Amino acid sequence: MSDKPSKSHGRLAISATAKPRDLMTDRPDLAGAWTAKIITLFPEAFPGVLGASLTGKALQEGKWKLDAIDLRLFGEGKHRNVDDTPAGGGAGMVLRPDIMGRAIRFAQKDAPDDRARWPLVYLSPRGNPFTQHTAERFAAAEGITMICGRFEGLDQRVIDHYDIEEVSLGDFVMTGGEIAAQAMIDATIRLRPGILGNAASTEEESFSEGLLEHPQYTRPATWEGRDIPEVLTSGDHGKVAKWRKEQAEEITKARRPDLWRAYTQDKAKH
Amino acid sequence: MSDKPSKSHGRLAISATAKPRDLMTDRPDLAGAWTAKIITLFPEAFPGVLGASLTGKALQEGKWKLDAIDLRLFGEGKHRNVDDTPAGGGAGMVLRPDIMGRAIRFAQKDAPDDRARWPLVYLSPRGNPFTQHTAERFAAAEGITMICGRFEGLDQRVIDHYDIEEVSLGDFVMTGGEIAAQAMIDATIRLRPGILGNAASTEEESFSEGLLEHPQYTRPATWEGRDIPEVLTSGDHGKVAKWRKEQAEEITKARRPDLWRAYTQDKAKH
Repeated sequence: MSDKPSKSHGRLAISATAKPRDLMTDRPDLAGAWTAKIITLFPEAFPGVLGASLTGKALQEGKWKLDAIDLRLFGEGKHRNVDDTPAGGGAGMVLRPDIMGRAIRFAQKDAPDDRARWPLVYLSPRGNPFTQHTAERFAAAEGITMICGRFEGLDQRVIDHYDIEEVSLGDFVMTGGEIAAQAMIDATIRLRPGILGNAASTEEESFSEGLLEHPQYTRPATWEGRDIPEVLTSGDHGKVAKWRKEQAEEITKARRPDLWRAYTQDKAKH
Repeated sequence: MSDKPSKSHGRLAISATAKPRDLMTDRPDLAGAWTAKIITLFPEAFPGVLGASLTGKALQEGKWKLDAIDLRLFGEGKHRNVDDTPAGGGAGMVLRPDIMGRAIRFAQKDAPDDRARWPLVYLSPRGNPFTQHTAERFAAAEGITMICGRFEGLDQRVIDHYDIEEVSLGDFVMTGGEIAAQAMIDATIRLRPGILGNAASTEEESFSEGLLEHPQYTRPATWEGRDIPEVLTSGDHGKVAKWRKEQAEEITKARRPDLWRAYTQDKAKH
């Protein structure tokens, strides 16, 4: 069986990384841009929110790339079937391993085999929870292939055969993996150089130190009878930094004892 | 200052719930459809993925409603500014409390004050983690108002003043709250009656029992030298159910000791 989709389709763009390095293009410096390949039954859902704001601007500028691969093109028969009933019975449908296998081989053709350089991820509530550390790992790779499930999920054999990493957005169930893919790409892309306007933003925020972020205030000085805390308008940078650190610690302690424990254990080691 | 946006805009649809109950409409039975109001700088990002598949079909059928409220319309001056620099210094911009306050009052005008009936949520990594229980709580309400942050976040005073519930999609940082809003709405909507084609699907899945889901298989019987586990093709429903339960327990124990602990403690209580 061929790994190629059975009809040609504009979305299945040939990646610039497949071209010889010495071939001059309009934007040669972007040939190795970080790329997300998404295997999905809803390619029209991409880029979605990722096409707006800073991630959208960076996408237009070629700072990262998005290939939405339509799983339906690898389906069989008149209706291009991609799923079948669960072995052993039960509700819903399961994505067939042969169909998904073909889509995966198509996606991986021009991607490095080394999973550290190019993770192959299935978005599933059974996976490891996605955290800021996962985003940092994905951002350090050259790109990623993400498989969006629908229905009752993927045949287990395809997960085993391709040694697919299962990653979960959280302890809840969605109708499919598409929104999870967008969430993870957003969190990843913004860590890549040249995406955020102000690089300092990624350094001061939640989780970068293991703490939740301190509260923020801006003008007007008084609103609905509430003032901005005096220390913030004192002009004393040392005091401001101290206050923010204390607030971040207080909030983390109160709201997330799990993060607080990890933070204090981490501090004790250093 | 008026709570109305300073120019008229098609997106700011008047909700059917504001009309008298006895007023006949084309679809009177849908007058109280579950509604998500989203305060955002990117109203064009909605419905996004939520417009596809089952959630999109249900949206078209009026089984739920989506009001994207453009925060920019409440902004001030020629450029309709909505943000200002953080008090005390630092990178990025903070959403102003007066601007956001106006948008919130506009959104809440026709919503019940009781937060159990209509949660008012700010999507923030500092909030309580969103779980299947949160989705169930949101699905039991009549609707929800969600505030999407951008930049360095919201002025703390607006959170305090309106007693806003902070909810986090997970321990990672995104460029804004829009994707988080879509993820939470998807997880919520699918729990509402009449959305999923097969109601049984919500009952058998991950987290409904506190366990990760068992593996799934479908045709072909053999693929890449791998067979479907024999028990699943035995036709013995009791054995299938027992195998699936064991698999779910094994996977949960191995992958998520935290969920496994909660599951065994919960079982001990009953």
